[in-house]
Amino acid sequence: MSNEKGPDHSRRKERSRQAILAAARALIAEEAYEKVTVEAIAARAGVGKQTIYRRWPSKSAVVFAALLALSEGVDGQSVALPDTGDLEADLKAVMRATAQEFADPSFDRLIRALNTEIANDAVLAAEYREKLAQPLDEAKKARLRGAQAVGQLRTDADLDLVLEVLYAPLFQRWLHRSGPLDAAYADSLVAVTLRAFAP
Amino acid sequence: MSNEKGPDHSRRKERSRQAILAAARALIAEEAYEKVTVEAIAARAGVGKQTIYRRWPSKSAVVFAALLALSEGVDGQSVALPDTGDLEADLKAVMRATAQEFADPSFDRLIRALNTEIANDAVLAAEYREKLAQPLDEAKKARLRGAQAVGQLRTDADLDLVLEVLYAPLFQRWLHRSGPLDAAYADSLVAVTLRAFAP
Repeated sequence: MSNEKGPDHSRRKERSRQAILAAARALIAEEAYEKVTVEAIAARAGVGKQTIYRRWPSKSAVVFAALLALSEGVDGQSVALPDTGDLEADLKAVMRATAQEFADPSFDRLIRALNTEIANDAVLAAEYREKLAQPLDEAKKARLRGAQAVGQLRTDADLDLVLEVLYAPLFQRWLHRSGPLDAAYADSLVAVTLRAFAP
Repeated sequence: MSNEKGPDHSRRKERSRQAILAAARALIAEEAYEKVTVEAIAARAGVGKQTIYRRWPSKSAVVFAALLALSEGVDGQSVALPDTGDLEADLKAVMRATAQEFADPSFDRLIRALNTEIANDAVLAAEYREKLAQPLDEAKKARLRGAQAVGQLRTDADLDLVLEVLYAPLFQRWLHRSGPLDAAYADSLVAVTLRAFAP
């Protein structure tokens, strides 16, 4: 479609998409989610409201897309997990980065808004799983399968459960603000997971 | 105070409190949290709106109290964890009951509403921790300390971390509807936790 209208049109469309998503992220970082409107996102992005509604049906859909875009690499691909051959070191690097991300106030508000929507909307929850959580989980599981192959993780481990034990405590601690999200905590989750699923 | 007005007044007050909390729970089980109003709770409980506002400042405060009341025993005390001397059996009993509770649709809506409030309100989150989560956690930790004393759990285990590893995966799976909440899953969380914190 867009190619029929030429590369300039396609580039303009992508620029406008990026501007809208950046505006959504900026506004959510600045004020409470309930107060952010599609009108405000459009104004901040310098586009008309209809430009947003042509692409997304609702505010929560734009916010969801804004979050999704955060996990796109420069080439639009999800980033694979580090693989230095040392599972413990690789998981610590990933979990420390995750803890730091959740502790970042601007990220915090966006993910909190998204989690509120997901918790109360089964359709959005399914879309979240399909488009964001599962692709990320697959990248993580690929790394874990590599570790199983070289005897660093028990071969009969349920990898969904491994990921839950690794990530869910951090997620719950963040959501309930029940403790610090620092490097020491990230490391302790890695240590617990490796002990629980040692070969 | 209430004793000065006599035992009848005190009993009436307690009956009205119980009726209000039951009405709040019933309404939240029936419809979306946003649609439940203090007026509707009052009507269902057969009291005036002011009777509710004299005791609680907001809808979320009543809902919170309704949830808190669920964890009161018949004597108003929190229930201790089972202690048969077999840590694995006791934890499986508790986690199976927890999984069943979260899988119950009427409980589901109440806890989902509460989690939405907690995730977005740091003051309510602190109150939730102080009045509900921490007392329950203390009861669980007392059981874990008993297990440490008889060599069923490593003595240097961080008990907050033990509880997170045990409960957070179930909580996240429930919140994101990302998998079944059954007895097999409850058992697998116990197995993982006992392996991770084995002496």
